[in-house]
Amino acid sequence: MVTQTRIGLAGLAVMGQNLALNIAEKGFPISVYNRTTSKVDETIERAKHEGNLPVYGFHDPKSFVNSIQKPRVVIMLVKAGSPVDQTIKTLSVYMEKGDCIIDGGNEWYENTERREKQMAELGLLYLGMGVSGGEEGARNGPSIMPGGSFEAYKYIEDILLKVAAQVPDSGPCVTYIGKGGAGNFVKMIHNGIEYGDMQLIAEAYDVLKSVGKLSNEELHQVFSEWNKGELLSFLIEITADIFGIKDDKGNGYLVDKVLDKTGMKGTGKWTVQQAAELSIAAPTIASSLDSRFLSGLKDERVQASNTFKSIGVSDILTEQCVDKQKLIDDVRKALYASKICSYAQGMNLIRAKSIEKGWDLKLGELARIWKGGCIIRAVFLDRIKKAYDRNPDLANLLVDPEFAKEIIDRQLAWRRVVCLAINSGISTPGMSSSLAYFDTYRRERLPANLVQAQRDYFGAHTYERIDIPGSFHTEWFKIAKSSKM
Amino acid sequence: MVTQTRIGLAGLAVMGQNLALNIAEKGFPISVYNRTTSKVDETIERAKHEGNLPVYGFHDPKSFVNSIQKPRVVIMLVKAGSPVDQTIKTLSVYMEKGDCIIDGGNEWYENTERREKQMAELGLLYLGMGVSGGEEGARNGPSIMPGGSFEAYKYIEDILLKVAAQVPDSGPCVTYIGKGGAGNFVKMIHNGIEYGDMQLIAEAYDVLKSVGKLSNEELHQVFSEWNKGELLSFLIEITADIFGIKDDKGNGYLVDKVLDKTGMKGTGKWTVQQAAELSIAAPTIASSLDSRFLSGLKDERVQASNTFKSIGVSDILTEQCVDKQKLIDDVRKALYASKICSYAQGMNLIRAKSIEKGWDLKLGELARIWKGGCIIRAVFLDRIKKAYDRNPDLANLLVDPEFAKEIIDRQLAWRRVVCLAINSGISTPGMSSSLAYFDTYRRERLPANLVQAQRDYFGAHTYERIDIPGSFHTEWFKIAKSSKM
Repeated sequence: MVTQTRIGLAGLAVMGQNLALNIAEKGFPISVYNRTTSKVDETIERAKHEGNLPVYGFHDPKSFVNSIQKPRVVIMLVKAGSPVDQTIKTLSVYMEKGDCIIDGGNEWYENTERREKQMAELGLLYLGMGVSGGEEGARNGPSIMPGGSFEAYKYIEDILLKVAAQVPDSGPCVTYIGKGGAGNFVKMIHNGIEYGDMQLIAEAYDVLKSVGKLSNEELHQVFSEWNKGELLSFLIEITADIFGIKDDKGNGYLVDKVLDKTGMKGTGKWTVQQAAELSIAAPTIASSLDSRFLSGLKDERVQASNTFKSIGVSDILTEQCVDKQKLIDDVRKALYASKICSYAQGMNLIRAKSIEKGWDLKLGELARIWKGGCIIRAVFLDRIKKAYDRNPDLANLLVDPEFAKEIIDRQLAWRRVVCLAINSGISTPGMSSSLAYFDTYRRERLPANLVQAQRDYFGAHTYERIDIPGSFHTEWFKIAKSSKM
Repeated sequence: MVTQTRIGLAGLAVMGQNLALNIAEKGFPISVYNRTTSKVDETIERAKHEGNLPVYGFHDPKSFVNSIQKPRVVIMLVKAGSPVDQTIKTLSVYMEKGDCIIDGGNEWYENTERREKQMAELGLLYLGMGVSGGEEGARNGPSIMPGGSFEAYKYIEDILLKVAAQVPDSGPCVTYIGKGGAGNFVKMIHNGIEYGDMQLIAEAYDVLKSVGKLSNEELHQVFSEWNKGELLSFLIEITADIFGIKDDKGNGYLVDKVLDKTGMKGTGKWTVQQAAELSIAAPTIASSLDSRFLSGLKDERVQASNTFKSIGVSDILTEQCVDKQKLIDDVRKALYASKICSYAQGMNLIRAKSIEKGWDLKLGELARIWKGGCIIRAVFLDRIKKAYDRNPDLANLLVDPEFAKEIIDRQLAWRRVVCLAINSGISTPGMSSSLAYFDTYRRERLPANLVQAQRDYFGAHTYERIDIPGSFHTEWFKIAKSSKM
């Protein structure tokens, strides 16, 4: 083996294995370690088979740490929460001042900030580094969102620039995000946006299948076609793939045999909670989380369906006569317009947090590093990057001139799709909440005056006026009472 | 003065003053204290004027505490958070084992649980007691939600039973909620439901005004009429009042001069965050919070409105020809059906938390104590109480036979109103998310199968099948790739 490796990686589940192999393949000798040592041997075996890659395995943490050149850098890819603390404890005892630990998992950003402080007390540097792209991305080029110690980032910048996905004309999908937990936070929002994208695609599928009566073959065609245009993206691509796959355990297509229950792992929940914390409306992302929750209540849904059927309401309310090609076109437009709203929400969440924390995040640069490698990669992100290039202080993606025009071109189709779904009795919570977001945001005068009047009526919370500056309170009850007498 | 008073109250803003006067009026001599002593004198002055009520004022905490008979009970009505800790610190030094402190504010339930433990170390009892009804309710009979020490509750049960709102046939609007922070949690959900109610009413107003072109006089008539039927409630009543009030600073009606910006104080935010935490979909409540956030962006909205106007989209998309009376009828039905969804969400939040914390909360009993005194009081709550009387284990209010029937009777009107709003370009986020909630919950098969297939495709998250038990993983990418070759 080489005298010393360039970097280490601890935690060899599939993501960890793949990232280690990726790093080695880019020419950086890497030490690997895992508590369950069979995973170490498995990784070494893979390294041999995938091209004699310079991966060196260790069964104990001490020799693992000592095998890395100084200042040592170790990337952890373990489950968020206490396994991270555990791994840090195991490794840090063997590390020295100036060494660096990197958490590559989906960690809650405040945990990263806490650990960065703890490590600083030991003289160690710390990074919270979001990695998106799933297993395949980790192996062949993910989008990487490192935050925390800039010094630590600089140690490994050469590695990250090569390991990350490479996008022609816009470079490697990595950038130093910002201080503290910025990398984790941005990755969390990325995942929230991913929830939104997946929900919107599921709704498009639902309308096309349930109302348009498209077969899986047709859906495969439609999504393949969509993947050549404005919707070109990883998620549309894999959706097209999914509709083409036959069930190997029975007749028909596999997608029809998959239970309609969606799992989740926490980042969507955090995104919604942070939205509330930051006073940012993120209804598209929230509706995707709610849809996952409701999908989980399969038994209740079956019962509810029966209850309502028994009093005369079927799952699909009415069979509507639709022009298939027009419907496909409308749904594509509705999906695209909704997607703009969802990304507008995600970007505004990042900006609000950036202001709160003083992270000085560059929204256009984030759109750039999401163009490749990650789950939400799409040509669409280039449009977002350009919108922020045009105006870094853009209040909302919706009012960027290009996006505004794109929405206007699609809004009638969007409204048609949502109303069609409503009249068919199927729900499009993502598309309809996106539309409500658009119609609320572009509205000069909302009925919020009534809500504020109510608040002043029962709680003396005061109100402002449209014509006179200042804060006002009215004795609504007394006036109403006197006029009744 | 009497030798010793029965109870004390600290924190004499309007809510505190009113609750103290209410308690005194019910025949319980009460000591009052406030850091800013002028508030004490003000309260004493009011007590004289409002019928020589037995209220005794103190300018220092020691003599205040000593004036109360043992075991001493002090209700605090101060701002949530550190002012509560500060007040506890000030008072507790003069209190003795067996005495009790009650927080009557809108406190985060975990703070109450923390303080209950701290007080227990001093031998003091603690209650977190939600009080709803605004200033008027506090004075004349609020809905009271005490949680924490049962022993402490028993000390003051006689007071609470008299001070609370009295509802014919269902008794005083108070009950012992449960251990720990149960009282605060239930009050928090009450407020979340209140947000939802207010938003739905605002949307009804918006559709009637913007699409139906109803004048304030007509709105006053409509809401007065609604307040005689199934919607009879405090919030509908005050809404009717509001539309009847003329602007005393200019021409026309005051409601039109109120700025369309809604304030908020935290309980709605907490409700939405808890919904995410508990995996409970609460889209109606969430949309009301989002609407408050977006209402606050007045300047951005004005700009966005201009941006879209400049490219040809006016605030109100199209003038629709509507039958006014039919619209009024439809909107009433849409409001009622949406309200059922909103309460279903709130009740399910309470149940989920009750299970998590082992609080054993009785949903029907909560509906009972909300029938009077509080902001959401309504005849509707009696229907909810009855639904849980029929079946305490009801999975969701939507499937209670009575509510299910009510929804079905209104669903076409509900769909008409939401589609009308969408086609008019105005948003009804509360009504449309409620409808999506209904259509999702009653759906046997959702498109969540696609989402789970996607998750398995890029993250190997596995899936279940509809026909074979177990957990499955498919190499979607490999299969798709091979079929492309």
